[in-house]
Amino acid sequence: MMELHIQGLVPAVFTPMHADGSLNLGQIGPIVDKLIAEGVRGLYVCGSTGEGVLLSSEERRAVAEAYVRASAKRIPVIVQVGHNSLAEARGLAEHAQVVGADAISAIPPTYFKPESLEMLIRCLAEITSAAPELPFYYYHIPKKTGVEVDTVQLLERSARALPNLVGIKYSYTTVFELQACTEVEGGRYNVLFGTDEMLLSGLAGGAHGAVGSTYNFATPHYRRIIDAFERSDLKEAQRLQGLSVKLVREIMNYEAMPSLKAMMKLIGLDCGASRLPLQTLSPEECEGLQRRLESIGFFEWGRG
Amino acid sequence: MMELHIQGLVPAVFTPMHADGSLNLGQIGPIVDKLIAEGVRGLYVCGSTGEGVLLSSEERRAVAEAYVRASAKRIPVIVQVGHNSLAEARGLAEHAQVVGADAISAIPPTYFKPESLEMLIRCLAEITSAAPELPFYYYHIPKKTGVEVDTVQLLERSARALPNLVGIKYSYTTVFELQACTEVEGGRYNVLFGTDEMLLSGLAGGAHGAVGSTYNFATPHYRRIIDAFERSDLKEAQRLQGLSVKLVREIMNYEAMPSLKAMMKLIGLDCGASRLPLQTLSPEECEGLQRRLESIGFFEWGRG
Amino acid sequence: MMELHIQGLVPAVFTPMHADGSLNLGQIGPIVDKLIAEGVRGLYVCGSTGEGVLLSSEERRAVAEAYVRASAKRIPVIVQVGHNSLAEARGLAEHAQVVGADAISAIPPTYFKPESLEMLIRCLAEITSAAPELPFYYYHIPKKTGVEVDTVQLLERSARALPNLVGIKYSYTTVFELQACTEVEGGRYNVLFGTDEMLLSGLAGGAHGAVGSTYNFATPHYRRIIDAFERSDLKEAQRLQGLSVKLVREIMNYEAMPSLKAMMKLIGLDCGASRLPLQTLSPEECEGLQRRLESIGFFEWGRG
Amino acid sequence: MMELHIQGLVPAVFTPMHADGSLNLGQIGPIVDKLIAEGVRGLYVCGSTGEGVLLSSEERRAVAEAYVRASAKRIPVIVQVGHNSLAEARGLAEHAQVVGADAISAIPPTYFKPESLEMLIRCLAEITSAAPELPFYYYHIPKKTGVEVDTVQLLERSARALPNLVGIKYSYTTVFELQACTEVEGGRYNVLFGTDEMLLSGLAGGAHGAVGSTYNFATPHYRRIIDAFERSDLKEAQRLQGLSVKLVREIMNYEAMPSLKAMMKLIGLDCGASRLPLQTLSPEECEGLQRRLESIGFFEWGRG
Repeated sequence: MMELHIQGLVPAVFTPMHADGSLNLGQIGPIVDKLIAEGVRGLYVCGSTGEGVLLSSEERRAVAEAYVRASAKRIPVIVQVGHNSLAEARGLAEHAQVVGADAISAIPPTYFKPESLEMLIRCLAEITSAAPELPFYYYHIPKKTGVEVDTVQLLERSARALPNLVGIKYSYTTVFELQACTEVEGGRYNVLFGTDEMLLSGLAGGAHGAVGSTYNFATPHYRRIIDAFERSDLKEAQRLQGLSVKLVREIMNYEAMPSLKAMMKLIGLDCGASRLPLQTLSPEECEGLQRRLESIGFFEWGRG
Repeated sequence: MMELHIQGLVPAVFTPMHADGSLNLGQIGPIVDKLIAEGVRGLYVCGSTGEGVLLSSEERRAVAEAYVRASAKRIPVIVQVGHNSLAEARGLAEHAQVVGADAISAIPPTYFKPESLEMLIRCLAEITSAAPELPFYYYHIPKKTGVEVDTVQLLERSARALPNLVGIKYSYTTVFELQACTEVEGGRYNVLFGTDEMLLSGLAGGAHGAVGSTYNFATPHYRRIIDAFERSDLKEAQRLQGLSVKLVREIMNYEAMPSLKAMMKLIGLDCGASRLPLQTLSPEECEGLQRRLESIGFFEWGRG
Repeated sequence: MMELHIQGLVPAVFTPMHADGSLNLGQIGPIVDKLIAEGVRGLYVCGSTGEGVLLSSEERRAVAEAYVRASAKRIPVIVQVGHNSLAEARGLAEHAQVVGADAISAIPPTYFKPESLEMLIRCLAEITSAAPELPFYYYHIPKKTGVEVDTVQLLERSARALPNLVGIKYSYTTVFELQACTEVEGGRYNVLFGTDEMLLSGLAGGAHGAVGSTYNFATPHYRRIIDAFERSDLKEAQRLQGLSVKLVREIMNYEAMPSLKAMMKLIGLDCGASRLPLQTLSPEECEGLQRRLESIGFFEWGRG
Repeated sequence: MMELHIQGLVPAVFTPMHADGSLNLGQIGPIVDKLIAEGVRGLYVCGSTGEGVLLSSEERRAVAEAYVRASAKRIPVIVQVGHNSLAEARGLAEHAQVVGADAISAIPPTYFKPESLEMLIRCLAEITSAAPELPFYYYHIPKKTGVEVDTVQLLERSARALPNLVGIKYSYTTVFELQACTEVEGGRYNVLFGTDEMLLSGLAGGAHGAVGSTYNFATPHYRRIIDAFERSDLKEAQRLQGLSVKLVREIMNYEAMPSLKAMMKLIGLDCGASRLPLQTLSPEECEGLQRRLESIGFFEWGRG
């Protein structure tokens, strides 16, 4: 049986690019080394943060391979292979298996959406059968996909149809449903929460770990939240989570995705431009963002 | 300055009706006595659970008055006065003050929606100025109202325009925003969470109390969640919250509002029919609901 | 059997107010006389344009009565009585019948929405049974109500449950569904289109008449569209409709509702302020609007 | 300057597949010959009807090439190249130019959406610059893409940034906006309407032609609508359009896309299965559909 059960932080890693938007694979090694040094428990590649669907399939393969190589089996690498075309998704899944990824994950097709839970499961089976040796995490992010499935039912009904399903990347704020997911079949599924700015709520709901953007650049801070939670120091966990809320609110003064990517530059690991239709923050906006972060002391508490 | 700072559980009380849908005000006394005996810290009247907007204005006045009388100043009564017509809302607010309610609350107009934060504040000022002696709680429930305001900005900008504003009924799952609300102006505002099935997440985010439907019929259970949270027994709090999730998922097998109302019958305080366009559960459905609850042991852990 | 079959233009009349937002019923007589002189075939009172749901029930009664009196049976008056509270809607319906309105119309409840066609029909039956002598028009405006019912099915299934149903105010751009409505039961139902800026499309789809805001201030122009359509002069009808499109696009440079209301001032029948949460155009905005209209020659072709 | 101005019917052609979902390119020749014989004025390839985004990029190239070859310059072929990845879209655009397509068209990226008109134009420029010799049609289908741009502004502001832009595939029911599009810069842009079941409304609004699914299998019928419209026989045009409405309502008794594809089998040009997440109609459903069509006489009036 498929085995993968991640606990702790899994950054949804960025795809480093040059200023002209071409891939900058050379930056992946330093990023991975830094993240591992800071104690992350896995990497989530080519997700929303990684601009996966904005890349060509060839580029997605290159990025996946580079992250797998850079991690060198030190921590598991999950490759997001979702695509409007299941044929392309299958190709990406197969490639992930060939190059040695540890798991795959996928959003459902979104232009045409699965009209029922049954159809969603058929789509996921189509994808996962192309990488039969890899564990699979369903990527639930209904605000972006428009696919509003009851994830508890998805897990309950998937045992036979989706033998590779090991868990879910739960990128939604409905912690009650997340908690129900953690209890399906005696806690069989690995539930990773995807809303960084309410990590503590997710942990309170039973999430085993968390996948998110801000775990790329504020990893030590979030580890302290988990530590405080685990030693039942709720006051401290709440205080630290409050700082995370502040951080995200400052970032959201700019367009979300490019602003998150700009954070990497501010911590010395420039990930370059974003792909259209995403903006790239201008130098002035980067400076503004830096000043905002300084004003809340981020560079002290967020990084140390 | 306005003072009201509720901590703990505030049931969003039902409006008891006869089988034909007419008001059954006689049932209010027993309901209130039971809730006070179980330790609730306030009552929220004529909200969504109370079918407020489905009643005539005259009926809303009668219900508000009955709850105020029944509570007899033992616990604060908050009367929800929101209405598409601000003229009607003002009338309800004025009445609430006259009959001795402790606070008012309101959804914004929803058929025509305020197009900006400024307009929302103008609307709320229009309402609150009709009850100048009563504290005011903004009722934030964007999934129903379609009004997606940033509540942090609302609180930050309201000090002058809304002198009566003391807090917010936060009926949304975005705990990160709730947490930011708790920190506005040094924690000036009273933040009451409105998603019962993730109460623990809300507490972790700093909510002072909670307004909700299920606090009408599972009060002791939720008090145990709060107790466990306050003594930092997270394992137990999580376990109890998991039962709440189960409870709500069983209830949601039927149409939400009528199924919640049917719960009162199952605990011996029949609240009768729902008003159209809400269904009323049939006797068969009530029995089905009862069996579902028995299967998860609700009548043991939920009530005792 | 109920009989009312309107052909031609039915302005959704404004509710005239003073600058402070109080009712200005004295302005209703001149408005009605002007509209009748210009050849309208009915009046639609307290709809969206009339800010019906923003008024108190008492005000709605006053406005309805004033329009009924002013029209003095020269043309039919349809009173919109929809309300979140069906109890209030029934009261308004009963009043409309008592004061001599010719028909009623209603949106469904919108805060809680009917979850099925059957429930929608039950709600409408609740309303219409309070005015058993009056014909009823369903007011279909799904972008505002969120009630996305298939109106063809509504008409097909309503014969027994809604004996008073004579037609539909179809305020949506899906002309194909409108056309299907015109064919239900051999064309039994009176279908009035509600998208002024594509009146010609609606006529091409078989609409018998049209209810709308711009028929208050550009009546002669729209009569020319109907005339051109009826004599099969499509080139001319299209040209005139193009002017209507221009008119509406200029109006939409400001917030829609207040900008429409401001048009009445520009044609000499000041209807005053709008009720919150609607803005009222400032004098500067009114002048800007006037200049925009002059630039497209509206005061020549729109009024003459 | 780019020149292409289509008048008349442009079927959004299907991608023929075998029962197992693999491409059946051999069926394209007969389809094209039939359509040309019936008088269509162009072909729209790999759009929504053609399941474009469900195919791999390699398959999209194969389908585009096959349609270009089969049409052999008898009528223009427009290839839809939209993709979440603009890099992929550029590759498809370049390929379309190389193989001799007559125009390209594209939806915007939809997973991440352009947040402003400016960004949309930048995205389209990115695509069109890869096929600098081909005219470009913007594919406006906001219900599926979620991109709600004002198309009039898009056309007005695109002259410099999008020199290849010649028109728009307007797949929305807001004919007033379509009509405004036909008047931008003196009628410079070629406006093709995309709502078959209200073609007459679109023609009344000034559409030059129409792109749609049902033009694949009911071409003669729609040509009669256009003929009736052009000779100003509105009664007949309306009657014929009413039949189209009936046709589409019968088709919509099943899931829309697979039901449309099944129509090709019923007229003897089997296009096989649909790709997931679309269903494929079962044999029983196909028979049901056939009976429904027989009951409205489709095989007489729709085909002859």
